[in-house]
Amino acid sequence: MIRILVTGGTLDKEYNQLDGELVFTKTHIADILRQAKCTAEVAIETVMLKDSLHMVDADRQLILDRVRACPEDKVVITHGTDTMADTAAVIGRAVTDKTVVLLGAMVPYSFVNSDAMFNLGCAFSAVQLLPRGSYITMNGKIFSWDNVRKNRQKGEFETLG
Amino acid sequence: MIRILVTGGTLDKEYNQLDGELVFTKTHIADILRQAKCTAEVAIETVMLKDSLHMVDADRQLILDRVRACPEDKVVITHGTDTMADTAAVIGRAVTDKTVVLLGAMVPYSFVNSDAMFNLGCAFSAVQLLPRGSYITMNGKIFSWDNVRKNRQKGEFETLG
Amino acid sequence: MIRILVTGGTLDKEYNQLDGELVFTKTHIADILRQAKCTAEVAIETVMLKDSLHMVDADRQLILDRVRACPEDKVVITHGTDTMADTAAVIGRAVTDKTVVLLGAMVPYSFVNSDAMFNLGCAFSAVQLLPRGSYITMNGKIFSWDNVRKNRQKGEFETLG
Amino acid sequence: MIRILVTGGTLDKEYNQLDGELVFTKTHIADILRQAKCTAEVAIETVMLKDSLHMVDADRQLILDRVRACPEDKVVITHGTDTMADTAAVIGRAVTDKTVVLLGAMVPYSFVNSDAMFNLGCAFSAVQLLPRGSYITMNGKIFSWDNVRKNRQKGEFETLG
Repeated sequence: MIRILVTGGTLDKEYNQLDGELVFTKTHIADILRQAKCTAEVAIETVMLKDSLHMVDADRQLILDRVRACPEDKVVITHGTDTMADTAAVIGRAVTDKTVVLLGAMVPYSFVNSDAMFNLGCAFSAVQLLPRGSYITMNGKIFSWDNVRKNRQKGEFETLG
Repeated sequence: MIRILVTGGTLDKEYNQLDGELVFTKTHIADILRQAKCTAEVAIETVMLKDSLHMVDADRQLILDRVRACPEDKVVITHGTDTMADTAAVIGRAVTDKTVVLLGAMVPYSFVNSDAMFNLGCAFSAVQLLPRGSYITMNGKIFSWDNVRKNRQKGEFETLG
Repeated sequence: MIRILVTGGTLDKEYNQLDGELVFTKTHIADILRQAKCTAEVAIETVMLKDSLHMVDADRQLILDRVRACPEDKVVITHGTDTMADTAAVIGRAVTDKTVVLLGAMVPYSFVNSDAMFNLGCAFSAVQLLPRGSYITMNGKIFSWDNVRKNRQKGEFETLG
Repeated sequence: MIRILVTGGTLDKEYNQLDGELVFTKTHIADILRQAKCTAEVAIETVMLKDSLHMVDADRQLILDRVRACPEDKVVITHGTDTMADTAAVIGRAVTDKTVVLLGAMVPYSFVNSDAMFNLGCAFSAVQLLPRGSYITMNGKIFSWDNVRKNRQKGEFETLG
């Protein structure tokens, strides 16, 4: 069984046709897994729906609490890309008995050309195969929490080196 | 560097509007990786575009030859689902120095509700993390070549047990 | 109020992942109108779900009966493209007190690159603006029932001239 | 031949993955017409790419000039929804020898659930069937320039009455 903790981020943003803004109304993770015809057992839990630029320490603490509290030792977390590495680090420093994989999307699932499904697929294999620890899977690459950053100029994740 | 060998299957089928049949015209793997915003380095090689029900021993031999011949030791193969387990077994028995991951799709990428991107994402992490050997990643699960079959009644892959 | 009579055709075909065939399970017209955010009032009635190559005289008679029986004088009919002109002619010869517009799709709505929404949009304006009679709207053109055929080599509708 | 004047609006907005904003980079009208398999002859002309809330009198004058200058007497204009009725009125008061139909989208074409194709289909039939004058086609309804407004609370176009 894989626990999926939803925290928001680009992945779940939708178009509000009344004001033309991108907003959160609900998570699309169940829709994505239905389209994926996922046969792995999952439990989906929405912790929050936030742009990760707006996350504060208390948010990361809450996510960490949920990682610790869930009965599963394989945890996938959807997260905004801007501070994903920060949350991965909070978890990486504190959690040693579970495999935790964070992912997000550069383009929301509600767009025709979204990368959300691909990144979620990467996370699903990674959480089943990686040793305990905290990781990020974005756009085909796998990163350890202590060697990753988002390059905002390029819009890509990369190692620190 | 990841080598992607394209062999056809449901994943790459398209609608032919002149006769209403599903046909192969080209692979969509480069399109999928563009949508995925994949930053991992890949080399795409089209070996064939076949419905896997129509594959014969010579086809599997050709695929095996390409697995052996390519310089990369991480190989992803797109393949029809009906005989994917057969090809995985041919490779699993013969190749011991590379990690080979086969994937396909239950619904073509040209359809709105395709699982192709998710399965390719699963394969990308799997090929980077698994020890040498031959594997299948379908719909969120990871299988070893010697413990997998397609359940055609359910349209799902499962272990033999 | 616009009456929509559903008869099947390419527009409503879906992928059956168990056998890889294109099949009918239900109409997608309500889904299309939801995506279209249609504010015009409509009544949707499924008459049949058939490939129009398989339609016989009794099918066309049934469609004609439903055109006559419905209370609305604006009728849109979804139909397979192969014999759409035949059905338009049956209606054109028999119905003089309603505006009837037939449409279909060259590619099913379930595909990423479907023309279904565009053709339905064309039909919606046409049925509100055209004088009484029987018409076809396909791919941006409007045809009268007595001057239209499908060119199967080109996969396009054209005038007889 | 139908002239299509592109002016921007929600229809053409795209996701900028570097800053998460919706922006204009180019028009998608040619892509939409390709997906629509449009067989009607068209000439596409990009006049501007603007959010219609940012349009000023000079913009509407420029659009009017292009309507007058083009050789075709059937003109389709893509436009933001917020001030579409204003531009339709400027054209309606000034142009008496052409049929001009404005349309937009409540959700951009780059989103999975866009109404852009449907509205463009409505406009295509309308421009071929309506007498000379200025009109709006949105979400299945057809409006004359002198009897239409956008209801921003509902996100719908309606008559003044």
